[in-house]
Amino acid sequence: MSVVTSGRYTFPSYNLVFFIFLQLGLHSVEGVWPLPQSITSSPERYPLNPQAFYFTYGSQSAAQEGCSVLDEAFKRYFSLIFPDYSSGRFYSEVKFLKCKNEVRFKVLLNLNVVVVQSDLSVGRDDCDSYPDEDSSEQFAVFPNAQTNNKASGVITFQICYYVNKTEIKDFPRFQFRGILLDTSRHYLPVQAILKTLDAMAFSKFNVFHWHIVDDPSFPYQSRTFPDLSAKGAFHPMTHIYTQSDVGRVISFARMRGIRVLPEFDSPGHTQSWGKGQSDLLTPCYSGSSPSGTFGPVNPILPSTYKFMATLFKEVSSVFPDSYIHLGGDEVNFSCWKSNPDVRAFMLKMGFGADFTKLEAYYMENIVNITVALNRTSIVWQDVFDYHERIPKDTVLHIWKGLPASYAAELSAITKAGYRVLLAAPWYINHISYGQDWRNYYTVQPLNFSGTEEQKKLVIGGEVCMWGEYVDATNLTPRLWPRASAAAERLWSDEKQTSDVDKAFPRLQDFRCELLRRGIQAEPLFVGHCKHEYQGV
Amino acid sequence: MSVVTSGRYTFPSYNLVFFIFLQLGLHSVEGVWPLPQSITSSPERYPLNPQAFYFTYGSQSAAQEGCSVLDEAFKRYFSLIFPDYSSGRFYSEVKFLKCKNEVRFKVLLNLNVVVVQSDLSVGRDDCDSYPDEDSSEQFAVFPNAQTNNKASGVITFQICYYVNKTEIKDFPRFQFRGILLDTSRHYLPVQAILKTLDAMAFSKFNVFHWHIVDDPSFPYQSRTFPDLSAKGAFHPMTHIYTQSDVGRVISFARMRGIRVLPEFDSPGHTQSWGKGQSDLLTPCYSGSSPSGTFGPVNPILPSTYKFMATLFKEVSSVFPDSYIHLGGDEVNFSCWKSNPDVRAFMLKMGFGADFTKLEAYYMENIVNITVALNRTSIVWQDVFDYHERIPKDTVLHIWKGLPASYAAELSAITKAGYRVLLAAPWYINHISYGQDWRNYYTVQPLNFSGTEEQKKLVIGGEVCMWGEYVDATNLTPRLWPRASAAAERLWSDEKQTSDVDKAFPRLQDFRCELLRRGIQAEPLFVGHCKHEYQGV
Repeated sequence: MSVVTSGRYTFPSYNLVFFIFLQLGLHSVEGVWPLPQSITSSPERYPLNPQAFYFTYGSQSAAQEGCSVLDEAFKRYFSLIFPDYSSGRFYSEVKFLKCKNEVRFKVLLNLNVVVVQSDLSVGRDDCDSYPDEDSSEQFAVFPNAQTNNKASGVITFQICYYVNKTEIKDFPRFQFRGILLDTSRHYLPVQAILKTLDAMAFSKFNVFHWHIVDDPSFPYQSRTFPDLSAKGAFHPMTHIYTQSDVGRVISFARMRGIRVLPEFDSPGHTQSWGKGQSDLLTPCYSGSSPSGTFGPVNPILPSTYKFMATLFKEVSSVFPDSYIHLGGDEVNFSCWKSNPDVRAFMLKMGFGADFTKLEAYYMENIVNITVALNRTSIVWQDVFDYHERIPKDTVLHIWKGLPASYAAELSAITKAGYRVLLAAPWYINHISYGQDWRNYYTVQPLNFSGTEEQKKLVIGGEVCMWGEYVDATNLTPRLWPRASAAAERLWSDEKQTSDVDKAFPRLQDFRCELLRRGIQAEPLFVGHCKHEYQGV
Repeated sequence: MSVVTSGRYTFPSYNLVFFIFLQLGLHSVEGVWPLPQSITSSPERYPLNPQAFYFTYGSQSAAQEGCSVLDEAFKRYFSLIFPDYSSGRFYSEVKFLKCKNEVRFKVLLNLNVVVVQSDLSVGRDDCDSYPDEDSSEQFAVFPNAQTNNKASGVITFQICYYVNKTEIKDFPRFQFRGILLDTSRHYLPVQAILKTLDAMAFSKFNVFHWHIVDDPSFPYQSRTFPDLSAKGAFHPMTHIYTQSDVGRVISFARMRGIRVLPEFDSPGHTQSWGKGQSDLLTPCYSGSSPSGTFGPVNPILPSTYKFMATLFKEVSSVFPDSYIHLGGDEVNFSCWKSNPDVRAFMLKMGFGADFTKLEAYYMENIVNITVALNRTSIVWQDVFDYHERIPKDTVLHIWKGLPASYAAELSAITKAGYRVLLAAPWYINHISYGQDWRNYYTVQPLNFSGTEEQKKLVIGGEVCMWGEYVDATNLTPRLWPRASAAAERLWSDEKQTSDVDKAFPRLQDFRCELLRRGIQAEPLFVGHCKHEYQGV
């Protein structure tokens, strides 16, 4: 039996625990994706009787029956493992046995008894709270098979499942494994977001970065500023996220061990904000008079910061995560330059003609707003590139360039002591013909010049699905299983997963498993799955 | 009122006729795709009452109530035009009025009566037969609005539809407008094929080129040779097309004015055939002994031609179209070269060391089999490139190369007097980031060196969706609306549709219309549709 070395909060680990059982039951163990840190499988195998399959809480476990996150997960994964039993006919017979320090899998078999055990400490207090960056995801499974000849008595099930004797010890390489969805360039119905969260859990992604608003539309329905969506959404009734929608997304994510990181990007990327909030954007000038168009958020007005403080106060009450993404990327200075009031402000503040100083001034104010709300900021790399004075716990998000360029940025940011999140190599909205998942797989996030201490500042990576060409019609097949390639890079040991050709059949197998679970994941190459997507 | 100049068989024209009404009813007329040859719309508009909307047969029309193709189309398009009325509550009140020489649209409005007329001759004999290359698709619509104050009496419908006074004259630029689906590299469930046929009709594609078998799998369940799919399909029960499946596809296509062109590609691309038919493929040699692998179909055995004659006899009885696609592409000679029996045959036949002569010998035999079955052959351009002696009515299918290269091939093939079909610029399985539909749109199929007579030999074009990376999970969003760009090129007047930027908003509008009709068509760029795809 293995011992969990760090077990403060083991929230998302059931994903893999149960997943492994599914693999063992219906597939070969080779299909496990992402690859566990340690897995040993023996050819020894035992028949598995769904009528006698139990998910149980360890008697030493602080969490017991009634722990919503695990109770719900038990239910979900039982159906995934035994789809034929999801009718509930047998489900009512599944009992959660109370043990103490562990979650125990008990599998009673036809004519035999096999006990499969898993150590998994779950803090009682964490059962009904949200996952966070400190959540530990280490765990171990050690199936301990004991057989005797005790018959189960009732045998009505015709399909035989088998489980191989397998030992797994696992923990993630990076704590932050995110997917960005962009709901501004196209509106994504809530159903499409929930489906993505489901698929994320299967690949062990644990952060949903919700790039909820941007230039094209403002679908977030604010309690405090309802005009933002009423005037800034593509449609004020059908293309918005109500407070209830947002709550549903957060709760659905929580049940799957996924944090929801909201981004309200400013001062650029805010055209849609201006429709519902007058005087927020900078009036651009053509010569000596306003041109009628607007630029980035107006950084010179006190009303701007008052508005932002109120908005972010609401955001921090709606989104429970301790991080807020503040954007800060791609600020175009031409409108600020054209505006005489902005120029006068520059002079007054002693910024000269350096508009990066104005941007820095703005971002510092916004970051301070989130600090006051007891939230940690994530900002795009632009904010670091302009040398703004930002709190040391701010996370910099790298999105620019090719390997050489992002490696240099990783080096520079970590040298300055900031934590960093890598997205640049995983802009998955970019598509090309063929097996481009191989490019996502072969990324080496720590292959940059720096000390061990610097490397520890890389908290993880993120797959970005920007929305220029993506909505609910093509989101799922474009995301899966290509994102799963990045998932393994972020979860598994790099040395064990350095051979992309060896990964191929395992990923192909995993993709079929995604199909079986109802995720419309596209094929990697010629071939077939037992359960094909049937079309609509 | 307009007169149809050629009205032998006007089968697929209802697609556009009804479509225009939909556009008129729910959209602006600008959204019509593909663009009709002539369309004049007036701002004059009339309210449209679904309770009093009639599809009628002209009194002079040879086709009358009971013409299955049109009766079914009436039903389908009524629901598309008035989705709120598809419950059948009002549908039972729709009557088909018998007139004489025309199909008449009769629209009785609240308080007014507007009669919309369309001339459309349908030959009685064609109602229950299959569309063919000779099917005329010319037609005209001339809405003749007359108003009076007669009230309809019952007004329970709250939504108001409007129809603009519009005159349309239309006919296709090319008679062959095809889409190829590849069901060998991945199996496509019948449902996915039917969905594609539905979408094809909306873009006025009229040929479904079914590349049904190839190297990876043989899903066609043959009556005569059941082992071909039993041993050559990905799975002998779940990954096959039964005779009933094939019949369903053909019948579904017929109802939408779409021909089904089967391809049984040989002598290359036949690895899967060999699993269920021994001695069909050429044994490859390694030195002086067989290597255990197999090459193309064995062209030297009489049993090969006996098998092919029997198979194609079955194929011609199952597929009613007068064309059969025989493939003939990408034959690799290395296996033939390795085989001593093949080399001996070459000597005997006086082919020397020129294996293109052996390929020519094979293809001539296969083409003659289809001639004997009273079918016209389509073959890939390779067959022309090897200067094989083939009947003059054979159609050559161009698939290779960039514009310069396919233009030269168009020139050469038509100079030799053969008819030609262009696929090279529309390999739509190739994807790239951004608006690549523009490349499909700007193709100029007749931009090659040749006489007017030569240009007339270009019978049309085809969009090819090869299956290496495509199955039912990503087929629809990858095909639509990108294929619709090619559809307009093949249907509409080139001069009127030369501006790709002008086409953009119209195609965007059409894509939203596809969504509304249940086709999971991907977005062209940032934006939204009234009816978004809701995800699954």
